[in-house]
This record gives sequence, C-alpha cells and structure tokens, in this order.
Amino acid sequence: MKLDLATPAPLWLHSQLRNDTHYLGALPLCAVLLMNNAACPWIILAPASGQWREVIDLPQDLRRQFWAEVDLASHVLAKNFAPEKINIAALGNMVPQLHMHIVGRRADDPAWPRPVWGNLPPNPYADAVAGIDAWRRGFAAIGDF
Amino acid sequence: MKLDLATPAPLWLHSQLRNDTHYLGALPLCAVLLMNNAACPWIILAPASGQWREVIDLPQDLRRQFWAEVDLASHVLAKNFAPEKINIAALGNMVPQLHMHIVGRRADDPAWPRPVWGNLPPNPYADAVAGIDAWRRGFAAIGDF
Repeated sequence: MKLDLATPAPLWLHSQLRNDTHYLGALPLCAVLLMNNAACPWIILAPASGQWREVIDLPQDLRRQFWAEVDLASHVLAKNFAPEKINIAALGNMVPQLHMHIVGRRADDPAWPRPVWGNLPPNPYADAVAGIDAWRRGFAAIGDF
Repeated sequence: MKLDLATPAPLWLHSQLRNDTHYLGALPLCAVLLMNNAACPWIILAPASGQWREVIDLPQDLRRQFWAEVDLASHVLAKNFAPEKINIAALGNMVPQLHMHIVGRRADDPAWPRPVWGNLPPNPYADAVAGIDAWRRGFAAIGDF
C-alpha cells in the first residue's frame, strides 16, 4: 500500500481541512494530510470522496480498507517520530466530513496529557517542505505493509 | 457477535477504567464498559487481556477483530441513542492500557463541540441499572452484525 504523490489534493476536501493542513498524498482510499502544527507529528486521513460522516457509514469493504490505512499511518508515525503515545480519533464535531486524526504524543508536548484539540496554540511549520518530506519518506519506507 | 453477560468484569482492567465505568459484558476480544457519566452515551472497549498499549501492538487478526468490535459498538450507539455525531478515540495519555472511547455527541451536550475529555463535569448515572440495561438490550438487538 503506497502513498501516491502524483495525485493532486482532492477538490472534495472540506475547506477547513484544506486550510489547516498540507497535502501529503493519497492512499488507496484516503487523502493524507499533515496538520500544520509543528508541536506534534499529526496527520489526518480523509476517505474519498468526502461524502462520509461516520466510520460506520462506509460500506464494509471500504471500512476494512479505512482501518488498514489507519493502522499503516500509525506504523509510519511509530517508526519515524518516536511518539510516547499514539492518539487516534475521529471526532468531526466541527468538520462533519469523516476524517481520522493520528497524533504522536510526548510528555513534553504543550498539551500533554490533555487531548490536542483545543489545547495547542497555533504553531505552523517553519519549514513545511521538510515536514512534508519526512512523512513522505516514512510512508515510502513502510512500503507494502 | 454477541455481548457475553455471564463473564465477570476481568481482573486485568486498569483500576481507573474500573473505577470510572460500569461493566456491560464481553465481546469476543473486548471488555465493554459504560462510562459513568450520564451526559453522553459513552462506552469504552478494552481488548483482552489488557497487555496492549497501541492498536498497532495487536497482532493483525486481533486488530481486525478490534476494529470490527469498534464498528459494532458504534452501530449499537447509532441505533439506540440517536447521536448527532459519533466520537471514536484511543488516547491513553492518562491510562496507558489500550482502550477505545465510543461517544455519542449532541449539540446540546455540555461539552459540545469540544471533545468530552476534560470538558464534562462529573455526572454519574442516577439509575445505573437502567443505563446498563439500555446498552445490553442494544447489543442484543444488533445480534450477529
């Protein structure tokens, strides 16, 4: 399962997701987004084509694929960013388009041990290209997981 | 996939999970717990036998079963408690034993639209037996999903 870098950011992405993130690429089902907050390694998976609200709205085959991609992304996080704890969450109280947060947490991050949502000040990447490349290299190295 | 009501609450449950919840029963992999806060319909799934920290620590067969049980529990929530949004999260910053929150949210709940963690005052069930029974009936009605 490879991250496709050639696909452009999809038009169906909710505007707030587009505004808050950098586009990393596409897995078979999900767009992969880098949250533009350098305090934590934090990506978001949003399944195509954006018409879903809850995980259980996905048909069973897509739901299995969705969870497989969440697991893959969690592996990329674990292998490349040495988090002390992984936080996984589909909330959607503000942005109803289904999207899954995968966040690496450390005891020295500014929100610890609280959840990141609402507890992190803005902290955009000073070098977004380096941040994007680190994640893309991580996905490439996991390969066919 | 049935909720087994005969099994007692497992001894491997983290003490904070045990203290914060009522035991509902056992799915094939997970203990199912009712969070003792009546503000939201909120259950927790904790996979046996409590030695896991991250979802990706589970072997692949157990990981698939784990996600299937999360989906089942989400269905029970959706069918019986009419949430406007389902919040699913594995955080574990405070309780490192792997557990998944499945929370039904409504725009009139006291934490909306913020996450529930850290944003809900204590609100234990006045009638815990009725709360437990509602969830157990919901799991029984979903049957062999």
